[in-house]
Amino acid sequence: MAERGVDVVVVGAGIVGLGIAWTAAQSGRTVAFVDPKPATGATYAAAGMLAPVSELHYQEEDLLELTLASAALYPAFVESLGVRPAEAGYRSTRTITVGADAADRRSLADLREVQRGHGLAVEPLTIREARAMEPLLSPQLSSAFNIERDHQVDPRRLAARLQSAIDGASSRNRWTHDHAIRQSAVGLRHERPADAASRVTGVILADGSTVAAGEVVVANGLAAGQLGGLPDWLALPLRPVYGDIIRLRVPGHLRPLLTATIRGLVRGVPVYLVPRDDGTVVLGATQREHGSAAVSAGGVHQLLRDAQVLVPAVAELELIEVTARARPGTPDNAPLLGRVADGPGQPASDIPGLIIATGFFRHGVLLTPIAAQHCLHLLDGTADGRWARFRPDRFSRPMASEPPFSRTPQSSPHTPKESARD
Amino acid sequence: MAERGVDVVVVGAGIVGLGIAWTAAQSGRTVAFVDPKPATGATYAAAGMLAPVSELHYQEEDLLELTLASAALYPAFVESLGVRPAEAGYRSTRTITVGADAADRRSLADLREVQRGHGLAVEPLTIREARAMEPLLSPQLSSAFNIERDHQVDPRRLAARLQSAIDGASSRNRWTHDHAIRQSAVGLRHERPADAASRVTGVILADGSTVAAGEVVVANGLAAGQLGGLPDWLALPLRPVYGDIIRLRVPGHLRPLLTATIRGLVRGVPVYLVPRDDGTVVLGATQREHGSAAVSAGGVHQLLRDAQVLVPAVAELELIEVTARARPGTPDNAPLLGRVADGPGQPASDIPGLIIATGFFRHGVLLTPIAAQHCLHLLDGTADGRWARFRPDRFSRPMASEPPFSRTPQSSPHTPKESARD
Repeated sequence: MAERGVDVVVVGAGIVGLGIAWTAAQSGRTVAFVDPKPATGATYAAAGMLAPVSELHYQEEDLLELTLASAALYPAFVESLGVRPAEAGYRSTRTITVGADAADRRSLADLREVQRGHGLAVEPLTIREARAMEPLLSPQLSSAFNIERDHQVDPRRLAARLQSAIDGASSRNRWTHDHAIRQSAVGLRHERPADAASRVTGVILADGSTVAAGEVVVANGLAAGQLGGLPDWLALPLRPVYGDIIRLRVPGHLRPLLTATIRGLVRGVPVYLVPRDDGTVVLGATQREHGSAAVSAGGVHQLLRDAQVLVPAVAELELIEVTARARPGTPDNAPLLGRVADGPGQPASDIPGLIIATGFFRHGVLLTPIAAQHCLHLLDGTADGRWARFRPDRFSRPMASEPPFSRTPQSSPHTPKESARD
Repeated sequence: MAERGVDVVVVGAGIVGLGIAWTAAQSGRTVAFVDPKPATGATYAAAGMLAPVSELHYQEEDLLELTLASAALYPAFVESLGVRPAEAGYRSTRTITVGADAADRRSLADLREVQRGHGLAVEPLTIREARAMEPLLSPQLSSAFNIERDHQVDPRRLAARLQSAIDGASSRNRWTHDHAIRQSAVGLRHERPADAASRVTGVILADGSTVAAGEVVVANGLAAGQLGGLPDWLALPLRPVYGDIIRLRVPGHLRPLLTATIRGLVRGVPVYLVPRDDGTVVLGATQREHGSAAVSAGGVHQLLRDAQVLVPAVAELELIEVTARARPGTPDNAPLLGRVADGPGQPASDIPGLIIATGFFRHGVLLTPIAAQHCLHLLDGTADGRWARFRPDRFSRPMASEPPFSRTPQSSPHTPKESARD
């Protein structure tokens, strides 16, 4: 171990990378993260809804087990930071979903059947009942549902607390290394430099220097695929899904505008309002696969228009920030999370020293605790076989006639082996 | 003169203050301006339309002579800066006014009668003709007019060029004083300290120091009334009229979005789009007399909505900036421009050494050359009597049965004397 700089180096210090680094540090490992600007990507934009129930989408039902598991971990994850939940921006207030017109009402009712089919509690409300909970909701809504277990966290605060917690671990454990390396990583260092299947022994930084590490976790979102030293055969099919998001300040006479998170469908288009303790409200979010990374005038217009349909007083708020960021999307909207095989054929072992954790799409904040826990279990060699279906090499390896993302991975021919390897 | 620091000190370095300072410097005077943050107030927000014709409002017809005179001065004013017009952001492209619905068509037709009554050229266009000039105008418009003589300037560029020009005068004339004093002025210095009617001999700064000057020009917008040392009887009835304004970037495939400035009425609400040479477009502007100085969510929504009615492709632009600022409004929407009497009664002389130039409301950029010229003429003792009707003491002095702002000031009983004094 003398040759190594740290036990674990995490490439990318968004919310997921920071969560992984913190959880690894708690396990007694020495840790560093590498990021020129921590927590300024999708983490900076994200609303932070912890909403496995209302986030359930039709073609993403295989994600539900993962999102529910992560939501269940959140209270303990926040508690591990040693601050009050409010200091990490964690709020266990409810979510109310609402529809604007008759078609939106039917869509939400259909979705509720799917939610109930998975045993999730979604309570119908009359508009009067919804407005008793949230008086500033529009009286013109077509439908409303109460979802008690969908909560929220402020990703900017949580990221700041995670960085502080890692700083604290560094002090407590008298780390002598720089654990917050403000550079880009350009490649992986391998035991046998020309062999991408050989053990990963660290990362190469933009300035040409190296951080030696027992394990490297690649958690730098959309940039993961550009990292040098990944196997040629490995496809990390990440695509940017751009979104605009708005921060509003509620003037004193309208506070609190809301206590619950409001998620609406307005003529089929989703929009949400997430109230923060500091008197601001997050209004999001558009989704576009094409176009530019800049804030879209049409997107901002649509968000402000639709938010006013749900909560007319939004017109009276102060607009304090408009941000656009890219979410790292994948073909099945599920993350690329786990170890990587050392070759495209079967059977294969995993490349030692390498874990990938990216592609969290809309779910990065929600999935941070489970990603951190799963990475820790991978480091410990005790990984939960259920999450093998999210392996990052699932789009690259021969799968016979199976689609990459199986609805019933437990019964697929390769799963037992993959589980065993995890 | 040995006791004096400079010939002229200008309090406030918005576009008007800078224009006055530059014009005074050109006359051979030594000049300084006092502002903690030059050109960051209304100047920073302003779209810079030089539009006396399309800006003509029903109750503001007395302003027309002033706005037309200032527009006529603009080419020479820009030329005086010694840069190409484009470097100062000056564009002599036309303005097209458009209406969205039938009521907007009637409003614009009525306004055209008023404009024609003043001898102003406003040419009706068919929608086809308007779209031949500007292909991205909506085909759904109700009416369109061409106004060749309404132009534009970029106030941020112009302010920067004015500052450079004053810097240049300082170098050329080997000024030994600091001509750009980045502080707030807190009061006027008088020859007889306890007598606000005595000669003004300079300004007192926030740090307690003094700038001695032969003449002080108070051009700090809404803050003018708070300056110490103004006569107690003098009312400067300034009020903030807040506005939101948006900057958009046109993506390459849509350039140029527009060549003309587009001013529209959409269901009775004005909105404009001003295209810049750098591929951006300025979209403005809301007006609200109450509420906060912050950007209004409802205001931004309304601007984006109405702009898309005129030019649907606005939805595809990038939103790069949203700004709110206060315009300094007055009861008659005309500026407070000129010298101040040394007492509320009649007859009276003017306080020596004091000029006020504020209250330019929506017209600060347009009126900068005439304000600068009028101030120079006041310094020279050769002021144009026509502008006496904009004296800053007009709301404070006994006016018999006359309203403060007379439609026919030439015939009012006090005008000859005031003109003589100017």
